[in-house]
Amino acid sequence: MGLKTYEEYIESLRKLKPQHYIRGKKIHPLDDPELRMAADTVGFTYKAAFMDEYKDLFRTRSDLTGEEINVFTHIPKNTDEMYNWCKVMRISTAEAGCILRCVTNDLLRSIYVTTYEMDKKYGTDYHQRFREYLRYYQKEDLYGITGMTDAGGTRALPPGKQPDPDAFVRVVEKRSDGIVIRGAKGPVAIAPCHEIIVVPTRGLREGESDYAVVCAVPADAPGVKIVVRPRAVDPSPPINLKTSASEGMVFLDDVFVPWDRVFMCGEYDFAYRLVDLFTIFHRHTCGAACKRGFYDLLCGALICAAEANGLDPFRVGHIRDKLIDLFALGETSWAHAVAAVYEGYVTEPGVFIPAPIHANLAKLHQTRTVQEAYRILMDVASGMPVSVPTYEDYENPELKSYVEKYLKRNPEMPTEYTLKIIWLIENLLLSPWAARNLILAVHGGGHDQASRVMFLRHVDWDRLKKLALRRANISA
Amino acid sequence: MGLKTYEEYIESLRKLKPQHYIRGKKIHPLDDPELRMAADTVGFTYKAAFMDEYKDLFRTRSDLTGEEINVFTHIPKNTDEMYNWCKVMRISTAEAGCILRCVTNDLLRSIYVTTYEMDKKYGTDYHQRFREYLRYYQKEDLYGITGMTDAGGTRALPPGKQPDPDAFVRVVEKRSDGIVIRGAKGPVAIAPCHEIIVVPTRGLREGESDYAVVCAVPADAPGVKIVVRPRAVDPSPPINLKTSASEGMVFLDDVFVPWDRVFMCGEYDFAYRLVDLFTIFHRHTCGAACKRGFYDLLCGALICAAEANGLDPFRVGHIRDKLIDLFALGETSWAHAVAAVYEGYVTEPGVFIPAPIHANLAKLHQTRTVQEAYRILMDVASGMPVSVPTYEDYENPELKSYVEKYLKRNPEMPTEYTLKIIWLIENLLLSPWAARNLILAVHGGGHDQASRVMFLRHVDWDRLKKLALRRANISA
Amino acid sequence: MGLKTYEEYIESLRKLKPQHYIRGKKIHPLDDPELRMAADTVGFTYKAAFMDEYKDLFRTRSDLTGEEINVFTHIPKNTDEMYNWCKVMRISTAEAGCILRCVTNDLLRSIYVTTYEMDKKYGTDYHQRFREYLRYYQKEDLYGITGMTDAGGTRALPPGKQPDPDAFVRVVEKRSDGIVIRGAKGPVAIAPCHEIIVVPTRGLREGESDYAVVCAVPADAPGVKIVVRPRAVDPSPPINLKTSASEGMVFLDDVFVPWDRVFMCGEYDFAYRLVDLFTIFHRHTCGAACKRGFYDLLCGALICAAEANGLDPFRVGHIRDKLIDLFALGETSWAHAVAAVYEGYVTEPGVFIPAPIHANLAKLHQTRTVQEAYRILMDVASGMPVSVPTYEDYENPELKSYVEKYLKRNPEMPTEYTLKIIWLIENLLLSPWAARNLILAVHGGGHDQASRVMFLRHVDWDRLKKLALRRANISA
Amino acid sequence: MGLKTYEEYIESLRKLKPQHYIRGKKIHPLDDPELRMAADTVGFTYKAAFMDEYKDLFRTRSDLTGEEINVFTHIPKNTDEMYNWCKVMRISTAEAGCILRCVTNDLLRSIYVTTYEMDKKYGTDYHQRFREYLRYYQKEDLYGITGMTDAGGTRALPPGKQPDPDAFVRVVEKRSDGIVIRGAKGPVAIAPCHEIIVVPTRGLREGESDYAVVCAVPADAPGVKIVVRPRAVDPSPPINLKTSASEGMVFLDDVFVPWDRVFMCGEYDFAYRLVDLFTIFHRHTCGAACKRGFYDLLCGALICAAEANGLDPFRVGHIRDKLIDLFALGETSWAHAVAAVYEGYVTEPGVFIPAPIHANLAKLHQTRTVQEAYRILMDVASGMPVSVPTYEDYENPELKSYVEKYLKRNPEMPTEYTLKIIWLIENLLLSPWAARNLILAVHGGGHDQASRVMFLRHVDWDRLKKLALRRANISA
Repeated sequence: MGLKTYEEYIESLRKLKPQHYIRGKKIHPLDDPELRMAADTVGFTYKAAFMDEYKDLFRTRSDLTGEEINVFTHIPKNTDEMYNWCKVMRISTAEAGCILRCVTNDLLRSIYVTTYEMDKKYGTDYHQRFREYLRYYQKEDLYGITGMTDAGGTRALPPGKQPDPDAFVRVVEKRSDGIVIRGAKGPVAIAPCHEIIVVPTRGLREGESDYAVVCAVPADAPGVKIVVRPRAVDPSPPINLKTSASEGMVFLDDVFVPWDRVFMCGEYDFAYRLVDLFTIFHRHTCGAACKRGFYDLLCGALICAAEANGLDPFRVGHIRDKLIDLFALGETSWAHAVAAVYEGYVTEPGVFIPAPIHANLAKLHQTRTVQEAYRILMDVASGMPVSVPTYEDYENPELKSYVEKYLKRNPEMPTEYTLKIIWLIENLLLSPWAARNLILAVHGGGHDQASRVMFLRHVDWDRLKKLALRRANISA
Repeated sequence: MGLKTYEEYIESLRKLKPQHYIRGKKIHPLDDPELRMAADTVGFTYKAAFMDEYKDLFRTRSDLTGEEINVFTHIPKNTDEMYNWCKVMRISTAEAGCILRCVTNDLLRSIYVTTYEMDKKYGTDYHQRFREYLRYYQKEDLYGITGMTDAGGTRALPPGKQPDPDAFVRVVEKRSDGIVIRGAKGPVAIAPCHEIIVVPTRGLREGESDYAVVCAVPADAPGVKIVVRPRAVDPSPPINLKTSASEGMVFLDDVFVPWDRVFMCGEYDFAYRLVDLFTIFHRHTCGAACKRGFYDLLCGALICAAEANGLDPFRVGHIRDKLIDLFALGETSWAHAVAAVYEGYVTEPGVFIPAPIHANLAKLHQTRTVQEAYRILMDVASGMPVSVPTYEDYENPELKSYVEKYLKRNPEMPTEYTLKIIWLIENLLLSPWAARNLILAVHGGGHDQASRVMFLRHVDWDRLKKLALRRANISA
Repeated sequence: MGLKTYEEYIESLRKLKPQHYIRGKKIHPLDDPELRMAADTVGFTYKAAFMDEYKDLFRTRSDLTGEEINVFTHIPKNTDEMYNWCKVMRISTAEAGCILRCVTNDLLRSIYVTTYEMDKKYGTDYHQRFREYLRYYQKEDLYGITGMTDAGGTRALPPGKQPDPDAFVRVVEKRSDGIVIRGAKGPVAIAPCHEIIVVPTRGLREGESDYAVVCAVPADAPGVKIVVRPRAVDPSPPINLKTSASEGMVFLDDVFVPWDRVFMCGEYDFAYRLVDLFTIFHRHTCGAACKRGFYDLLCGALICAAEANGLDPFRVGHIRDKLIDLFALGETSWAHAVAAVYEGYVTEPGVFIPAPIHANLAKLHQTRTVQEAYRILMDVASGMPVSVPTYEDYENPELKSYVEKYLKRNPEMPTEYTLKIIWLIENLLLSPWAARNLILAVHGGGHDQASRVMFLRHVDWDRLKKLALRRANISA
Repeated sequence: MGLKTYEEYIESLRKLKPQHYIRGKKIHPLDDPELRMAADTVGFTYKAAFMDEYKDLFRTRSDLTGEEINVFTHIPKNTDEMYNWCKVMRISTAEAGCILRCVTNDLLRSIYVTTYEMDKKYGTDYHQRFREYLRYYQKEDLYGITGMTDAGGTRALPPGKQPDPDAFVRVVEKRSDGIVIRGAKGPVAIAPCHEIIVVPTRGLREGESDYAVVCAVPADAPGVKIVVRPRAVDPSPPINLKTSASEGMVFLDDVFVPWDRVFMCGEYDFAYRLVDLFTIFHRHTCGAACKRGFYDLLCGALICAAEANGLDPFRVGHIRDKLIDLFALGETSWAHAVAAVYEGYVTEPGVFIPAPIHANLAKLHQTRTVQEAYRILMDVASGMPVSVPTYEDYENPELKSYVEKYLKRNPEMPTEYTLKIIWLIENLLLSPWAARNLILAVHGGGHDQASRVMFLRHVDWDRLKKLALRRANISA
């Protein structure tokens, strides 16, 4: 085992009985068209491991099980594996959209390091326990979602001072066989999944040890309620991008977790370390490598859009400039991704850490550029994506001849070709999925200020100050 | 007459029998929830004329009929009326969203001037004919949509050289009682309407006189087919912004127009003049005045979002800075609106022309800033709009207590208050309406390059060059 | 009287005996080439009042003396006068550079209002006293510099808590015939001048009344020491822009000021009012109107630079785009200038107040765009300004033929023409004057954060919040 | 040999007798204070090879001579050497400013590859000839300047169509012992130097083979005239940054070059290859690695400036944000530098080629950000750099006590410390050197459009287009 096919993945989801809600109704997630599409999006990571073109990148060998496993369940250990991960992310986003499964890989790495360090300090056995769990996760080729952000109550107060003590997920009972947790996580990126990995969302202080809890919960464990925020239903399903990535909330109503699934319980002084590692990993994955794939697609779409309008994107001056500007936005993300790999290092239990400064800068960069990328493509695409007839209009015999006649643009292209290009751009820029992408670019991996604060710790400011003093002829 | 109430406006639409399609189905537009919402959005302009707070701004007296009329059917004649129009636009957008009715007002002004000038050159009687039509339009308090952008064929060729001569709307027959036109218009901003005003979309040359046609067509005239691009259906109707603005295409399949509704027919040398005037008017209306209202709303939403998160927007440094940045984006639009009024002038038949440079700059400014405005609000609003439970979740007894408990943020605010704020922001930033707004900001009133080209003609470059020569000590 | 010619102005300066230092040496300011050039720059305001082209704009009639006076000694009282002032500023900067005299006009207006309001509250007679002084200032057509920014000590403490009580200028003695002040002002924009107007630089609190002092000091009063920061000497005097604007510090070493020149003495609660008015006035003058003139010149220089390189700025796509971008930066300043005039108002003693929001936005806008304007012109100008031979090289017979031959670019232009264009651009972009302009754009009229804070007070945020609540369906 | 000390370098320059002009006068370059400072700036590269801290980075072993040589005469052959070069550049700029010597290293690499490829195609022996020259260059530890940009005549015409055939440097005579060249190069970055390396500035076509000339000319060869554009003389030499980097023009008046110094002569089809390689190398060196060092210094200066004003740069919100923004600008350059190394490759004669896309993006990035970096530091530094008393003022007994008293800011710092910080910033932002830096950031390594065009060739656009087609469900 170690590698599930797409079909096996869907089948394994079907067997679960989670309490899933959408639009106020309880459903099995595979029965909702939007969530099913999200499962298919994650599904690309399963498919790619069996595609001739990609399988070498998407498979690796586990040092825990010795088997071939999916790269999404593997923890990168060196420069080469980290660079391979960047390429995997770039391809996944380009080919399938926001494939969601990356975030939990980032989280597994963080837990791997943190449990090791906790054991070293406190003599606990979390690391061994977690390796056992990871072995299982790899063997079963699981997809877990990341329950990190807490409901959070009022922003001005830490967990220990909230009016409602459950504003952050906490341990409400410790038993001989496990723990009971209560609280809510959200926003959580949600697709039909096997597991929910619960971790703290911020550093904790003395007196907040109940909030220091890391554990893995099956998606259909009793007490778990998953509420998905629907995106609006896309009007033209047959031709859309077939990609979806929902967000929502997970309510944890006194959920029991056995000890072999608990990887932190009370060690509040390690909460910050875990969060810090996760943000480095995820800002690298998401801010740097993933966005490159998305920009690859936007560049391709811009070329197609210009051509569909009968314009050569490489000869019309202002379009060429816009294409290059768009490309540059993406390639800068990639530069940060690669620089983080080249200047990264390996930490004690053998986990590769991409250079934190580049990881954070990648995040800051994309927070501010996804909007600009959209704007550029909108500019070149003309206003048609906002008014293009739908697939259903095109199929309606009363309208088809008009659509054929008047949507004809480049005389060398069939109208259907042009329509598909416009529909693609409508999906990329105007669909509910597009709007969700914009806000994720801002908040995924933490917002702007959260990234900024990281620099205070990771940059050697004193060296820079001394340099200036030397140039000012001040002996320091 | 001259002023319809909102109810009379809806009733008058109900009587029409247009050929309207959406999602491939023929419907009466008031029977489609999305189009009905669009009618209600336009409807604000009717309601405001009867609201105590606004009626002084939204009513004026016609110099054609002597009656009180809605400001949206009136042609501003001086600085005061133009400034009043700016305020009307600002309020309309803030209170109801993109109210659509403005664009045709801009168009009526352009036709008013152009017909006057054509008559002067050619001795035609278009101006008188148009004044008659305008009198009717004012009396009936009509809402016409603007059919300007043509299907357009390949972008590289002018109307007269297209493979399909119908790529631009043209006169296919002149009869004693009127003309027959054929072609397609789109993108067209569409809400249920009384009239369609058809005009050329660009300058024309000798040999293209068939394309020089301006006329008014009833929405349900034989041969007119209106196909609306649906936005995705919003998941939470009971609490949404209740605003909609659809785009789509209008097919004109050999539509007959009697002479008293024809205001240009063959005078190709005036096509550019009409388009130029229209773009000045509409970039002023839309780029300058309207956007200010939208930014007013975004600023208010930012304040509410911060407070809902328990943060004082005027004291937390980075939030305060973002609020001011957001405000500044909007106020710069307004500065251009006002400067265009103060430096505008009155042209011969008594129509006020806002200063073209400011009008165009307002457009360029907002093309590039709406994305940034969204980004700022997204940043402050946190990720919640992407994952907030829906109204239906909130009403579901199995979920309500969880939603109540965990969506509680600022302890001084009821959860429902917080939910409504998040729903508002979801609507503003993530709904299909939001995405449509972004692309309209780029293309409404013409895209970036189109605005740029205007400067070549409207700026006195020679004066600037001579100044530089003088400063370089070169006698010129 | 009321209008000095340029020659009379220079003559009147020559009679003064100020303690002026530059490069560590005491000099009469007219004897230093850089300061003499600064006097000539201010001198444009005197010349323009006698130039046929400009005199109507630069002259007005005093309501104090009934005579014709220079517009730089006049206080604008209504919309027309304020708009005229904007045009005067635009011309002055375009024709002569940073003419310096504007800032004190802004200050005189602030004192005019504040003295009126103090008298109303406290029954003092400052306003009458100040009107007498202003009458004298107008009659003699004086040029006063503005001593506002204090040495300031450590930035973290207010005047009353500084380790050195003289860190802010203060009254150290009150006598029957006048007051004695001590402290230092700087940065002060300095050219050879008649007067120094001393005002507080910030709001003051109880216990800081010694710092609440406004007075007028002759430039050569005993105890006044003026130290000018030289800009580097330009290598090519015969062909440079002939403009200069120095900054420096003014030390006030127990300077006696008679009562008829004292316009505030102890009324600490009016310090903020004065500063607030001044920043509105000066951000309007400098951020909005003046910069427009500078951008006029940059646009002209860009056109000349392209042509000198043999390229048509209106046809080469990327140059045309850059020209329009540059133009747009300037025109946005102007839009704020004009909007501030149109939406301004008249305050009680009859002084026109430009709309504070537009005035502040103009400042924020230019703080961030002057650099961009430079960058655009640099881009188009090519690298030649950095390596162009000097006037002296051109005059050297060993080199002249080479310069003639190899600096020939556009075959239709004499080499000397091309050289002069490059020299102009070198002066505009690379000279010490250019660098000074950049920092003035950031700090003149207060820095970025200072402008931002103004919005907290001048915007009706509550209105915006209520709008959002209404749209969110929350009854407020 | 292979390593000169700083003293030996200066001595070797003193022996040369070049025809050097500045301000219209002929001088030995070491006798002009500005050019002497430039020699000292280049001199850092000699000094660093003997500094304990840096010598390991600045020395390497030649594969031509087997000796230890200065890294500036070495051609990087692999990833490690290329990364080392990046660090060398970062340090050089941070410690000494624009050290000028880098550009010719980039050029030597380009000639190394191009001569190899020419020989392969044409059976010439340029490569061996060049290796001999390079051996000499390494042994003598020479500093050559790069004569690339031609006078250029009118921009609209290629070399072969110019009215004056000498507008681009060309071979006017081929003799048995060598060639004779004529023309002018400029802008050329000039410091006192041993050699001038002459290369074409652009691709050439058939019929332009006279312009295809690469050769090395001693700085004092007969017929060479060097005219330096002086920067303005800095007013405060004793405390300035002691860095200079002049530009100017080199006139080549029928200069004879023996064959062993000729490395291309007529092979016009290789001109583009050489230029392309050079731009990749130099955009990497200058746009990526060098600028990082400059930004290191700016960050340090910002920290010092804030502290000198009594403000903690890590605690005052808006200063902290600005520091991080400034840091991010620099670190993005560095990310491109590092990514170009990691994704680079080795070409046939064993020369390492940094990834062209990252090299070009680094250039585009810094073209647009140096201005912003200046703006940020200006903002934090306050207006003092523009008005700070000079060193001479500080030494003048009549002024010293005032300067001591009133320039005291942070009570924990001596006034002299504060003055030195302000002087540093004045030098960095306002000196003639600063202004030159701005224009070099735009034009060094080619202007914006030149970098853009490179992407057309170096990006696999077809792959991106196919990706979009696949996502649009179009089989391609």
